Amino acid sequence: MSNILGERVTCMSFGESHGPAVGAILDGISAGIDIDCAYVQRQVDRRKPAAAAGGTARRESDEVEILSGIYRGKTLGTPIGILIRNNDARHADYASTENLYRPNHADYTWQVRYGHRDHRGGGRASARETVARVAAGAIASQVLATAGVRVKAWTQAIGSISTGMDPATFTGDQVYESPLRCPDRYAAESMRMAISQAREQHDTLGGIVACSIHGVPAGVGDPIFGKLQAKLGAAMLSIPAVKGFEYGDGFAAAESCGSAQADIFIAGHGTISTATNHSGGIQGGISNGMPIVLRVAFKPIATMPGRTVDTVDTAGETASLTFGGRHDVCCVPRAVPVVEAMASLAILDAMATSGRI
Amino acid sequence: MSNILGERVTCMSFGESHGPAVGAILDGISAGIDIDCAYVQRQVDRRKPAAAAGGTARRESDEVEILSGIYRGKTLGTPIGILIRNNDARHADYASTENLYRPNHADYTWQVRYGHRDHRGGGRASARETVARVAAGAIASQVLATAGVRVKAWTQAIGSISTGMDPATFTGDQVYESPLRCPDRYAAESMRMAISQAREQHDTLGGIVACSIHGVPAGVGDPIFGKLQAKLGAAMLSIPAVKGFEYGDGFAAAESCGSAQADIFIAGHGTISTATNHSGGIQGGISNGMPIVLRVAFKPIATMPGRTVDTVDTAGETASLTFGGRHDVCCVPRAVPVVEAMASLAILDAMATSGRI
Amino acid sequence: MSNILGERVTCMSFGESHGPAVGAILDGISAGIDIDCAYVQRQVDRRKPAAAAGGTARRESDEVEILSGIYRGKTLGTPIGILIRNNDARHADYASTENLYRPNHADYTWQVRYGHRDHRGGGRASARETVARVAAGAIASQVLATAGVRVKAWTQAIGSISTGMDPATFTGDQVYESPLRCPDRYAAESMRMAISQAREQHDTLGGIVACSIHGVPAGVGDPIFGKLQAKLGAAMLSIPAVKGFEYGDGFAAAESCGSAQADIFIAGHGTISTATNHSGGIQGGISNGMPIVLRVAFKPIATMPGRTVDTVDTAGETASLTFGGRHDVCCVPRAVPVVEAMASLAILDAMATSGRI
Amino acid sequence: MSNILGERVTCMSFGESHGPAVGAILDGISAGIDIDCAYVQRQVDRRKPAAAAGGTARRESDEVEILSGIYRGKTLGTPIGILIRNNDARHADYASTENLYRPNHADYTWQVRYGHRDHRGGGRASARETVARVAAGAIASQVLATAGVRVKAWTQAIGSISTGMDPATFTGDQVYESPLRCPDRYAAESMRMAISQAREQHDTLGGIVACSIHGVPAGVGDPIFGKLQAKLGAAMLSIPAVKGFEYGDGFAAAESCGSAQADIFIAGHGTISTATNHSGGIQGGISNGMPIVLRVAFKPIATMPGRTVDTVDTAGETASLTFGGRHDVCCVPRAVPVVEAMASLAILDAMATSGRI
Repeated sequence: MSNILGERVTCMSFGESHGPAVGAILDGISAGIDIDCAYVQRQVDRRKPAAAAGGTARRESDEVEILSGIYRGKTLGTPIGILIRNNDARHADYASTENLYRPNHADYTWQVRYGHRDHRGGGRASARETVARVAAGAIASQVLATAGVRVKAWTQAIGSISTGMDPATFTGDQVYESPLRCPDRYAAESMRMAISQAREQHDTLGGIVACSIHGVPAGVGDPIFGKLQAKLGAAMLSIPAVKGFEYGDGFAAAESCGSAQADIFIAGHGTISTATNHSGGIQGGISNGMPIVLRVAFKPIATMPGRTVDTVDTAGETASLTFGGRHDVCCVPRAVPVVEAMASLAILDAMATSGRI
Repeated sequence: MSNILGERVTCMSFGESHGPAVGAILDGISAGIDIDCAYVQRQVDRRKPAAAAGGTARRESDEVEILSGIYRGKTLGTPIGILIRNNDARHADYASTENLYRPNHADYTWQVRYGHRDHRGGGRASARETVARVAAGAIASQVLATAGVRVKAWTQAIGSISTGMDPATFTGDQVYESPLRCPDRYAAESMRMAISQAREQHDTLGGIVACSIHGVPAGVGDPIFGKLQAKLGAAMLSIPAVKGFEYGDGFAAAESCGSAQADIFIAGHGTISTATNHSGGIQGGISNGMPIVLRVAFKPIATMPGRTVDTVDTAGETASLTFGGRHDVCCVPRAVPVVEAMASLAILDAMATSGRI
Repeated sequence: MSNILGERVTCMSFGESHGPAVGAILDGISAGIDIDCAYVQRQVDRRKPAAAAGGTARRESDEVEILSGIYRGKTLGTPIGILIRNNDARHADYASTENLYRPNHADYTWQVRYGHRDHRGGGRASARETVARVAAGAIASQVLATAGVRVKAWTQAIGSISTGMDPATFTGDQVYESPLRCPDRYAAESMRMAISQAREQHDTLGGIVACSIHGVPAGVGDPIFGKLQAKLGAAMLSIPAVKGFEYGDGFAAAESCGSAQADIFIAGHGTISTATNHSGGIQGGISNGMPIVLRVAFKPIATMPGRTVDTVDTAGETASLTFGGRHDVCCVPRAVPVVEAMASLAILDAMATSGRI
Repeated sequence: MSNILGERVTCMSFGESHGPAVGAILDGISAGIDIDCAYVQRQVDRRKPAAAAGGTARRESDEVEILSGIYRGKTLGTPIGILIRNNDARHADYASTENLYRPNHADYTWQVRYGHRDHRGGGRASARETVARVAAGAIASQVLATAGVRVKAWTQAIGSISTGMDPATFTGDQVYESPLRCPDRYAAESMRMAISQAREQHDTLGGIVACSIHGVPAGVGDPIFGKLQAKLGAAMLSIPAVKGFEYGDGFAAAESCGSAQADIFIAGHGTISTATNHSGGIQGGISNGMPIVLRVAFKPIATMPGRTVDTVDTAGETASLTFGGRHDVCCVPRAVPVVEAMASLAILDAMATSGRI
C-alpha cells in the first residue's frame, strides 16, 4: 500500500517518469463539493521549473485530465481519477545511464529492491511523480477551503540564505509571484545569486520549505500513531529529497526549558486560544485551533548539472559519469506547491478521521 | 486505525494510564521464532524512571504478561497479546485537575476531540502508554536480530548539553549503564547537573535521542508514501513530546551543496557501499545497506514539578494550577528504549513489506 | 491484518484455545456511549453449550474483563480491551492428537501454513476464539441500539429440519429461551430429537442460522468492494464451519425472473419503502431502509463424538483416531450469538464508513 | 477504501459508466513478471455482450491502455494503471430517467447515500465498472499462472436450467466457445431458449456461475477474518447482482451429517490429499491443496427490456417507467469473466498474504 497516502481521504499515485502517464486517484471526498478544475491546472503549472529559479529545461505540458468522480462541476463521492501524460520524454538521453548507478540517487537501491526497473529519468523514483500529488492536493485544498482551512508554503531557506519573514505579512499568491517562491524580496535576490553561483560551479543547493495552515479547528488528529504531526511528518518525508521535518519550535524546543515552551491558555468569548504558539498548533497529537506551522528540510539535488563524478555500474565496476546540463540546481522553489499538496492531503485526511469535515 | 502502527508487522496499542491495564497486540510476526520473554521484561524495566536522571517517583511494577501468540518459547504466527497492569494509580492525586486544562498538555485538545475523557494522569494521552510499545518493540528486536539487524539509541543532548560521541565506540548495553542513557560520561555528568539545576528551578528540559540501526540489508523500504524515512519519521513523531525528526545529515543537509552531500559508491568483492553516509543509509526511500542514522527532538516536559502556572478550566474560566512534585524533569533518558522500540517496529515492518524478512 | 475486521469500527481478535486467554480490542467506537457490561457478559453466556442442544461438556467461566476504553460507564473513544481467560484447558486431553491431522479440521492446513502451531484444542483455529467476538459484538450492538438498529439471529435449520417462522412473530429474547435458539417450538423439538439421534450414531449435524437486522436507515453501505452484502458475507464466512452466505432471496433468486424479484417502491409521507423485500434490504450494495435479512450455512462439526476415523499423522503415515466424547454434536445453537455479533460488527462498521452513525 | 480490494495485491477501481473513462490501478505485483497485454484485451473482449446470450446492444470498443507499471513487457513492481475509455455513452438515453428511481436498482440508495450522483446508465453503480476488474484480473491470472494456478468459471445455471457437467471434462477455452459460457451444449441450448422466451415476455433471468481454481498449494489463507472463503466471498459479493456465495458443498452441507462430509486424508509419496472434496479445497480458512470450488448466485437483471413498471420519482411521487430495449436479458454469461477476475484477484492476494507467491 506504499502508493497510497491517507486513511479516509486517500491519494493513490501511479506512473513512471518516462512511461505513458503519471496520475493519481483521490478517494474519500464527500459528494456535492464544487471543484474548480482550472485551479487544479494552475497549481500544477506552479510546479513547473522557472529558469531563474534554477529549474530544469524539461518542458512538459502537464495538462491535467479528470477521468472520473466529478459530474456537473461537483464531486460525486466516487474516486477522482487524475491523468497527466508524459510528453517530453527524451528517452535517448537516458540510454547512457542505463547501466550506471548515479551516486545519491535511487538507482542502486531501487535495483536491489525490484530487480527490474525503468531507469529512464529515474522511472517511478523521479520527482516527476509529484505532479500528480500537486493535482490531487489542489482538489483537497478546495475541499479544505469549504471548511475555512488555508494552506500556505514558501521558501524559507536556500543553502545558507534564509528569511525570517512573518507569514502573517504575505499571502500565498504573493509567494507564487516570486520565481523562488520566497516573498522576502531581499532574501530572494540573495537566493537567486546563490543558485546562479552554484550552477557555475556545477553544484546544487538544498533548502527549507516552511508551511503554515490556518483555520484548522481544535480537535483534529488521532492519538497514539495517528497523531497530526505523525501524519504531516510522514507526508512530508514522502517527498523526494526531504531529510527532516519539524513543527512548532521543533529541534529548537529540544534545547529549551519547559517554562520557555509553555503556551499559556487564554480564555475569552467562549473560545480558548494560547498566548504563544511554541506547540505549532498541535498538543498531544491533536490540533488546538492555533495555526499549524512546520518546516521541511530538502537536501541538495544529487544530479549536479555538467559535473563528472566517480561511480559504479550495475556490474559493480567503477565508472565515471557526466551529468547533463538539463537539471534543476535547486528543487526548493518547485517543492513549495508539493509541500502545500502534501499538507492539504494530510490535513484533509486528519479532519475526516476526526469527524471534523 | 490510529491505535495501530504498521502494515504487515502491526502493533496495536490499548489502555489508559489509570485504567486497569495498558497493552499491545503485536501481529504479523512469522511463526517459529524464539522469543526470550525475560529480555522483554528487561527492556521494559529500562524505561523505568531513575531518580538521578530526573525521573518521576511513580512506581509501577510493569510486569509483562504474554497472553497469546507464543507457545513453547516460539512464535505461533498469531497475534502476540501483551498485558501490563496499572498498579500505582493514585487516583486521588488527579481529582484536583479534573476540571483544569494543563498548559501544553493534551487535556484541552483531547476534550474537544472526544468530549468524554479519562483525565487521570492524562488517560490515554499519558506517556504511560509507551510501556506497551517497549514490550512490543523488544519482541520485534528479537525478530530483527535473527536477520542480523541491531538497533541502538542513546541520549545525544539534554537542553544545551550534547555529545558528539561516535556510536561505533559504544554498545547498547553501555548506553543503559548510564542512568542518563548517555555513554559519554563527561556529557552525562553535565546533563545530570543541568537536570538537577532545572529541578531546583521547578523547570524541565528537552533533548535529543539519536538512533543507529546496523545490519539492514540494501533494498528495504517502499517507494512513494512508504519510504523508509516516512515510516521511521511517523513512528518517532508518534512518541509523546517529539517535535522533530531527521535522518542522515538532516536539517544540516539543507544548508549544504550537492558536492558535499554525494555519497560516492565503493564497489568491492561483490558488494556496493558508500564512502560517506550523508544519506543516513537511505536513498530514494530504500535502504542502501549502510547504517541508518536518525535523530529525534523532544520538547521539555510540560508538567514542571512544583511550579504554579496560569491556565483555564473546562468552563473556560481562568485558573491557577500547581503541579505536584512527582514528575520527570526530563523525559529523554526514559525515551531511549521507546525510540529503540519504535525503530524496531518500523524497520521490521519495512523489512516485511519489502520481502526482506 | 487477518486478525482485524472492519475499517472504521475495528475488532482485533487474539488468543489460542488453550493459551492464557482469548480477547479482542474493539476500536473506532465514538466517545460518550453508555455501555452495560452486564449485557456483554449475558450475551457471552448465551454462547455457552447447553447439553440439550448438543453442546460440548467443556466448562469455561467465560468471565469478561474490560481492560480499557470505558470510564465511568461510558466509552472513551479509545480502544476497548476485552479479556477472557481460558480456565478449563485440560491439556492432557490433547497430547494424543499432537501428531495427528484430524480429518476436515484445520490441523493439516494450519501446519503447512505456519510450521509451528499450538495443537491443543485446535489452538487459534478453535471456535473458542469466537467468544471474544461475541463480547465485542455485544458492545457494538449497544452502540447500534442508540441508532435504533436491532439485530436478531435464530436457528432456522438443523440437518433436514427447518422452520419457516416469520421473524416478525418472535423476539430475540424468545430465541434465547429455546436451548436450540429456535423460537418455533415444534421445529425445535424435532431438532432436539435429530441431535439426540445423531449423538447415538456418533455423528454430527449442520444447519442454518438466519438473521434479520431492523432499523438500518437507507444509505448504509459503500459501493464497489465495500458493498454491504460483501461486508456481511465476509463477516459471516469468517465464522468457523460456515460454508455459504445469502441475503434476500439469495440462491432462490438465481432461479427466478426479474418480474418476480422487483421490489416496487411505495412512496408515502416523505419516506420511500418497497412493497416486497426480495432484495433483503440492500440494493446496489447500499441499504434501502427495509429489514436486512441473511442466511448462513454451517457444515456439521468435523469432530464426531466417540467415532473412530482413518487419518494421517504429521509424518504422513496412515493412522487411526478416536474422537473423545466431550464435543458438540451441532454448533448451530451456539453459533446464533456469534452470527449476531458478526452482524453487529459489520453493520456498525458500515454505518460508520457511510457517515450514518 | 471501498474502491480498493485486497491487502497486498490491491485493485483500485475508478470511473462512472458515462464519464470519460473507467479503469483500475493494480498494485502489489512483484517485479519482473512477463505480461501479455493481448491476453488482457482478449479477456476484456470476452465480457462483451453476445446477442445470442441475451446481451445488451451497447457497443463499447473496450480498448485497454496500460498507463504504467509495465516496462519492456515485464512488471516493474509499481502500480499498473489500466484505462478504458467510455465511447458509446448515449447520454440522451438517460435524460428521461434522471428523476426516476428504477425499482431494484441502485438509484434510490445511491441518491440517499451521496446526494449528488451521475444517474447516466447507473453512473458508478453500473456493471460497466466491472470491465476494469476484468482487465486487472487478466493480469493477476498471468501472475497466478507463473505459480501453476488456473482459474476457470462457467455458467452453471440460468433460471431453472442447470448443468451438472464435471469441470474436469472441459477447458476454459471451451467455456468461451459457448456464447452462454456453458460448455454443456444441451444445457446451453435450453438456456438460449429460456432467454429467448424471457425476452419475448419482457422479462429477465438469474443464474449461477460456478468456478474452480486448480493448483493453489496447501497453506494459502489467513485465519480468523482473512479466511480464504471470506476473501473469495467478499470478492464475489462485490459483483453487481450477486445474492449468494457458497464453496465446497455449501448450503447442501448444512443439511448433511459429519460422517458424510468428512474428507478423509490420503497420504502418499510425500504429499497429503483427500479422498473427497466436500470442503471445496479449504479447511480452517486455509487451502489444503485440493481444487477450490465455489458457486455464485446472480439475481435476474432489474431492467426488463421493453417493460413498463410502476415506480417513484426523486420527489417521492408515484410514476411510471418504460425500460428501453437496449439491455441484457441475463447477465450470467457476461459475469463469467468477471467471476474469473475476482477469483484471480482474491487468490493472488491470499497467496501474497500467505507468503506463497
